[in-house]
Amino acid sequence: MSNYHAPLDDMAFLVDEVLAAGDTLGQLPRFADLGVGPELTAAVLGEGAKFAGDVLAPLRRVGDQQPATCADGAVTISPGYADAMRQLAAGGWFGIAASADHGGQGLPELYGTAACEMWNAADMAFALAPFLSSGAALAIESHGTEAQKAQYLEKLHTGEWTGTMNLTESGAGSDLGVLKTRAEPQGDHYLIRGQKIYITWGDHDATDNIIHLVLAKLPDAPEGSRGISLFIVPKFLLDENGAPGKRNDVYPVSCEHKLGIHGSPTCVMAFGDNEGAVGYLLGEENQGLACMFTMMNEARLKVGLQGLGAAEGAYQKAVAYARERVQGGVAIIQHADVKRMLLTMRSLNEAMRALAYSEAVTMDIARYGPESERTAQQARIDLMIPVIKGWMTEVGQELTSLGVQVHGGMGYVEETGAAQYLRDVRITSIYEGTNGIQAGDLLGRKLVRDGGGAMESVHDAIAATQKELADAGLDVLAAALAEALADHVQSTQNLLALHGDSPESAQGLAFDYMMQTGYLFGGWQLFRGALVAAARMNDGVDNPFYARKVATARYYAQFILPRCRAAAGAIAGAADALVSYREDWL
Amino acid sequence: MSNYHAPLDDMAFLVDEVLAAGDTLGQLPRFADLGVGPELTAAVLGEGAKFAGDVLAPLRRVGDQQPATCADGAVTISPGYADAMRQLAAGGWFGIAASADHGGQGLPELYGTAACEMWNAADMAFALAPFLSSGAALAIESHGTEAQKAQYLEKLHTGEWTGTMNLTESGAGSDLGVLKTRAEPQGDHYLIRGQKIYITWGDHDATDNIIHLVLAKLPDAPEGSRGISLFIVPKFLLDENGAPGKRNDVYPVSCEHKLGIHGSPTCVMAFGDNEGAVGYLLGEENQGLACMFTMMNEARLKVGLQGLGAAEGAYQKAVAYARERVQGGVAIIQHADVKRMLLTMRSLNEAMRALAYSEAVTMDIARYGPESERTAQQARIDLMIPVIKGWMTEVGQELTSLGVQVHGGMGYVEETGAAQYLRDVRITSIYEGTNGIQAGDLLGRKLVRDGGGAMESVHDAIAATQKELADAGLDVLAAALAEALADHVQSTQNLLALHGDSPESAQGLAFDYMMQTGYLFGGWQLFRGALVAAARMNDGVDNPFYARKVATARYYAQFILPRCRAAAGAIAGAADALVSYREDWL
Repeated sequence: MSNYHAPLDDMAFLVDEVLAAGDTLGQLPRFADLGVGPELTAAVLGEGAKFAGDVLAPLRRVGDQQPATCADGAVTISPGYADAMRQLAAGGWFGIAASADHGGQGLPELYGTAACEMWNAADMAFALAPFLSSGAALAIESHGTEAQKAQYLEKLHTGEWTGTMNLTESGAGSDLGVLKTRAEPQGDHYLIRGQKIYITWGDHDATDNIIHLVLAKLPDAPEGSRGISLFIVPKFLLDENGAPGKRNDVYPVSCEHKLGIHGSPTCVMAFGDNEGAVGYLLGEENQGLACMFTMMNEARLKVGLQGLGAAEGAYQKAVAYARERVQGGVAIIQHADVKRMLLTMRSLNEAMRALAYSEAVTMDIARYGPESERTAQQARIDLMIPVIKGWMTEVGQELTSLGVQVHGGMGYVEETGAAQYLRDVRITSIYEGTNGIQAGDLLGRKLVRDGGGAMESVHDAIAATQKELADAGLDVLAAALAEALADHVQSTQNLLALHGDSPESAQGLAFDYMMQTGYLFGGWQLFRGALVAAARMNDGVDNPFYARKVATARYYAQFILPRCRAAAGAIAGAADALVSYREDWL
Repeated sequence: MSNYHAPLDDMAFLVDEVLAAGDTLGQLPRFADLGVGPELTAAVLGEGAKFAGDVLAPLRRVGDQQPATCADGAVTISPGYADAMRQLAAGGWFGIAASADHGGQGLPELYGTAACEMWNAADMAFALAPFLSSGAALAIESHGTEAQKAQYLEKLHTGEWTGTMNLTESGAGSDLGVLKTRAEPQGDHYLIRGQKIYITWGDHDATDNIIHLVLAKLPDAPEGSRGISLFIVPKFLLDENGAPGKRNDVYPVSCEHKLGIHGSPTCVMAFGDNEGAVGYLLGEENQGLACMFTMMNEARLKVGLQGLGAAEGAYQKAVAYARERVQGGVAIIQHADVKRMLLTMRSLNEAMRALAYSEAVTMDIARYGPESERTAQQARIDLMIPVIKGWMTEVGQELTSLGVQVHGGMGYVEETGAAQYLRDVRITSIYEGTNGIQAGDLLGRKLVRDGGGAMESVHDAIAATQKELADAGLDVLAAALAEALADHVQSTQNLLALHGDSPESAQGLAFDYMMQTGYLFGGWQLFRGALVAAARMNDGVDNPFYARKVATARYYAQFILPRCRAAAGAIAGAADALVSYREDWL
């Protein structure tokens, strides 16, 4: 069994050298007192790596083989998980990027992003608990009254309690407008009644309380998505001291038997089957969906990181196996095709990491940067998020599958643990908005709605990097990026034009466009790292780490970036075959 | 639960109209008395479809949820499997394409191919039993003495017994030269001692006997792959009447706990742990690997068909769900991105089927056609096999994953049965020669070794089809095929040149080339069908089936064929990044 070791050198290189967090974030008022810079990076990521490697990684197989179970209205989680949860809380990781006003650490999202990658690489099923919890906390921080913040935030940020998101119902998935859960006013609170499905970490026995955020409809609410409100429904109602008191009428009915993430209890949740579940309105009436949207970018960034995390875990396992396994007299890592698979994994992982971390910085600046920059940075992050979520989770599937492939027959045997990465990551293309929805969001809301303005800004930034690459003599990278950029500019124009003529035709190409965009953006950010590395080498720094950075980017340029051409070709065809195909022919 | 219905109209269209089996195969002496033609097609495939849909398909979930188990040296298979095996035998399906001299049906491989697709679409785990059995029978037919043929063939062809292939050992997978199983001469037989792993259907309780074919080394055999011999090792030794008698010293030790194909017992097999397992030499001493190679093409074609079968099963399930599931007020089949996924599945399934069936005909002609044609047809099938195995199993993974995606969250819940297709098919890229080995075979043995001659013949055939498409006014198809062909000719020349300079660089691109080849070949054969359909429409035949054929090909031309550009781009770069990357950097 190989273990997970967080790639600290790659992470620190990105944070400190490429993204220069000390300069870009360290100056912002929110972070000014933290001393953002290499020392902080080493301290934070080093601690995270220890927890991920020593505590979480050994639990990955445990959670898979001894899943959470549900019986008699309560979930029992996998052995070892409760203790790990306490350690995660003790380390202050639940609220790493949350405001220090309410028990958070107040670090930049960039550090939260690196930590999130580690937890997901070590054990994705476990990592979902702090993931959902911080989403619930962010919603309360953004929309709660001062009283609500005082009641719930510190407990969530310190990990003393966890939080959940209750959206989906059996008839309401991607379309939440038709949900059936009802909220009836009852003095200062509401009584919630209905059933929710796919509730991640919906119940467990690791913390004293669970704060459920629940979408429901008020009586006489408008039809559809404009008639949905958001409620805080604690598992235990708080007593006058703010401590968990009376048991609320919300219970897990069952846990799903899933393809993967077995350690994460995915619950059917019953609200108000008895006296009614007590809930408190969060934010305005009928503004529930809008409230959910405020935390969507963070959530989708994290799902993208799950794609990366699983792929990094799978990569490390595959490399270790390929060094050990001898066939034909040599370790299989020397076989050209095995090396291809490993380099595909490594270069795409580095590209995904570079993109995600870069956009965590964008997110930080959009929120805490100078007022003058916020609008543009918000437009950029809004554009980036569907790409990060969609592309990184698709790539995560490919790479975890390659991890199985490197193991040969051993990869197909569950005992090996390689297949688990593939099973676990498969959900990431589906939840938090399917990748089809991400593609539609990228095309419709992020591209067409502003006439391609935000995308043009990114194109300009890529062109600037391309020029730097050429100036630095990194010709292979410069040429590959130039071609991929030109193709993407063309695809963008084609799609904008096509969307005017036939929106459905454009929508049928949106997924391809999302993938083309991801490969381009990932390559761009990876090549920014190669620029920094090449500059260090030019400065005479003698560290093979930098040579490796350039070599990895070179592989990406030659083997991965050409994938952009596939999508570009389909989009250039302004294809009519999808729209004209009769549905009854399927 | 949706059921599997064999796509009889698509299959018959291919067999009778596109491949014109009555003309191409019906005239050959081997098949002359069978009356090959639409009536035979309808009868054979109709019966197969009934068995697949009514008997096998309902067992798919049973085998998955109640896997075969191994205890006390014996395997108990999943409920219902033994009865299904008897029905399969009673239908004559085990020996469908085997010589009538020894109890086979003597039908063309083309019909066996269609049947194989059906079994795998209905239940891949079950389908492995007749698959392995026919492989063992073919080896005995090709290399056995008359006495051996008389002893074993009829029982295998009628399905009274099954057969297995015992190759892999824990240290010997892709490299069989290092295997450790030993065979010691003992009068008219040998005593076999050793342990084999990953033995598909290695033991079971559904038939009276199991005929194991086992690779082992004789004392003083040459080193490596030239020192391997093949042995017949029956589970029960035959008595003087040829009936199963004394129990032989071969036992299953355990069954693997696998990602998928749970219904197929994958055994660790112990040979000769006690008195030694009695084995009989099959073929010449030290020629075991050569013997295995004679059935490799059939086996790899069938693994390709597993990719198609699983993808067709997944497609049917996904379409049924997409018609039912309403979101946003309409069935999701009307969402552009869902339609894209379903059309990707459908068009690629049709392309895979067209390619596989076409090459089943090539295989029939190479074996039973006019002497003058056999060499060329054999060269063609040798070229095609790694593409069919590698490309179709890779595509099978993509499409079964799309099947999950269409189901959204429901796809991730095992109860739905969509994820099983993905889990089951994942093995097909690994066994019977990993896809990396297929890619290397295509590049090294099939392309470089004859200087691209066999490939050039196929290029000529594609160019001829392209001209027909242009003449028929199918401009979109003609243009797309012309571009994909030109790209492929270029890739082929690039790779041949690169292989001369740097074989390892070429090997690092072999996988991409295999995929590029598959997309081209599949499109070519799919478009041949569109030509036939267009001609029928021109003849005034009023059948929407033909319009659908053209529309499906059109989708493939616009959305799928552009994928060729990705590989072409990587290959054109004559990439050096893989070779120059240091292994210790991985």
